[in-house]
Amino acid sequence: MTADSRTPAAEGFGDRVAGRVAARASQIVLGLDPDPAQLWPAALDCTGSPGASPAERAALAVAVHCRLAIEAAGDQCVAVKLQLACFERLGAPGWAALASVVENARAAGLLVIADAKRGDIGVTAAAYAQAFLGETPTPFGSVPGLGVDALTVNPLLGIDSMEPLLVAARARGAGLLVLVRTSNPGAADIQELALADGAPVSDRLAAIVADIGAPGIGAAGLSDVGAVVGATAPGRLEALRTRMPQTIFLLPGVGAQGARVEDLAPAFAPGPAGGLVAVSRAIVNAYLQAGGEPAAAARDEASRLRELAWSLAT
Amino acid sequence: MTADSRTPAAEGFGDRVAGRVAARASQIVLGLDPDPAQLWPAALDCTGSPGASPAERAALAVAVHCRLAIEAAGDQCVAVKLQLACFERLGAPGWAALASVVENARAAGLLVIADAKRGDIGVTAAAYAQAFLGETPTPFGSVPGLGVDALTVNPLLGIDSMEPLLVAARARGAGLLVLVRTSNPGAADIQELALADGAPVSDRLAAIVADIGAPGIGAAGLSDVGAVVGATAPGRLEALRTRMPQTIFLLPGVGAQGARVEDLAPAFAPGPAGGLVAVSRAIVNAYLQAGGEPAAAARDEASRLRELAWSLAT
Repeated sequence: MTADSRTPAAEGFGDRVAGRVAARASQIVLGLDPDPAQLWPAALDCTGSPGASPAERAALAVAVHCRLAIEAAGDQCVAVKLQLACFERLGAPGWAALASVVENARAAGLLVIADAKRGDIGVTAAAYAQAFLGETPTPFGSVPGLGVDALTVNPLLGIDSMEPLLVAARARGAGLLVLVRTSNPGAADIQELALADGAPVSDRLAAIVADIGAPGIGAAGLSDVGAVVGATAPGRLEALRTRMPQTIFLLPGVGAQGARVEDLAPAFAPGPAGGLVAVSRAIVNAYLQAGGEPAAAARDEASRLRELAWSLAT
Repeated sequence: MTADSRTPAAEGFGDRVAGRVAARASQIVLGLDPDPAQLWPAALDCTGSPGASPAERAALAVAVHCRLAIEAAGDQCVAVKLQLACFERLGAPGWAALASVVENARAAGLLVIADAKRGDIGVTAAAYAQAFLGETPTPFGSVPGLGVDALTVNPLLGIDSMEPLLVAARARGAGLLVLVRTSNPGAADIQELALADGAPVSDRLAAIVADIGAPGIGAAGLSDVGAVVGATAPGRLEALRTRMPQTIFLLPGVGAQGARVEDLAPAFAPGPAGGLVAVSRAIVNAYLQAGGEPAAAARDEASRLRELAWSLAT
């Protein structure tokens, strides 16, 4: 660990998000979960040498697809959310594509969220921290990690499993986004089980998020430990906001999963940066519904969602 | 999806594990979580061209280290458990090293467990299934996944988050190993919370594992949905075995985390293959305690643990 990484970051994640949301007047997070079988046609025009392997050619096309989506819709958004599974399935070339998309997003002024949902025991969590938020010392020199601004985290293994990630994030002004109440129907199976005191498990997760995030609250009143709260369960949103009043909510589920931006007002109670609205297929695949060019349709839908969310929050 | 992957596998995961455990008279799982700063000295002798990047050189050294460990201790073991975080932190070259270690382990007759602890909503779980258990269709041809025999899975997102992984696993005779009660102290924070009926969350997880695993019970009486149960909590082992009588337990925590093989007898109630004892640093780093050559020390420790576990189970 270098001296730099031990020094607290000059600006914490909460303040960075607040500043970026204000500057771009947007809370929209462009979700990128590229399916090689459903890429924008223009991405298939540049797929490397025919001698490359299917994985190499598909990964190159995926990287181009993501770059084009960022170029088209990025200026309507405040961040990108990269779905790790969609890159991992292309193996080593997929991981290289992931790294290039991180660079493209950063160059476009966007925050980068790795949707990795990692969670493991401490020694392994420290390795994930190196992979996503830090660097790995080796006998051949230091290997930089992806260097994302935030990482989604699964809290099932408890507080000690999040600590190495939080230390690494806090040192560089990055953040964690902890799963509290996910957007899928199966969220009810565990997260909504009633505990002995009558409250659901997700309320306990919310209390942990508020607790470990308290030392990371910045000048804007927002912590560096955020929460993933599915937009598909608006009935839970207000209660969870009460338990996490200074937490940034990452809100997936708008669009393909059926949630509506109009129902998300409680998320914005701490201010416009209190809720980040993650939208993937509804932007990137907008052209399949709206017709026209993929880029224009994506930009139009991102712009529409941006204005809608902004009007709720301000 | 090809016709082959829709056809149920001729031999399910439970039977495959039972057969392999019997043939090798071992329940030891060689955990590989390579730290580039703590590799066997011999692995540093072959690190590629000096012009390669630190990540490429470190990844090559990691792959050699893992191959040497498999050559040294593999014949005392029934499987390897690869810690994904330790490869991901080296980026694309790390993922390539991971794929090569999978091949080495398979060539040595070992089952391969990817310790990935993935868990996500259905559409993303399907992408993880492609990455670890299947293949990804692309316009350039199909991209094969890692092709592991089992994957550790985080159940926080509920049953629907595990279904695509289970379908993919079952189709090819692979298995899932679902986190039920992990080996770290923080496991108590969520997994041991008391539910309204007084039982802990981990009991509910156990019930889900038994339920989704029931259709996958093979001739040997073991299911293709296993459970991760920390060896560090022997007090919970017997109760969880009662709730999951036909489930293969993956038991981490022996060695560096302080658990003892001697306390694991309840795991073996369904037979010798009922418990797989995962040991990482205590084997690979045995030479740091015992002295001598890393390979000889690793083999000796794996042999000692193999005989100890086998004597408990038979």
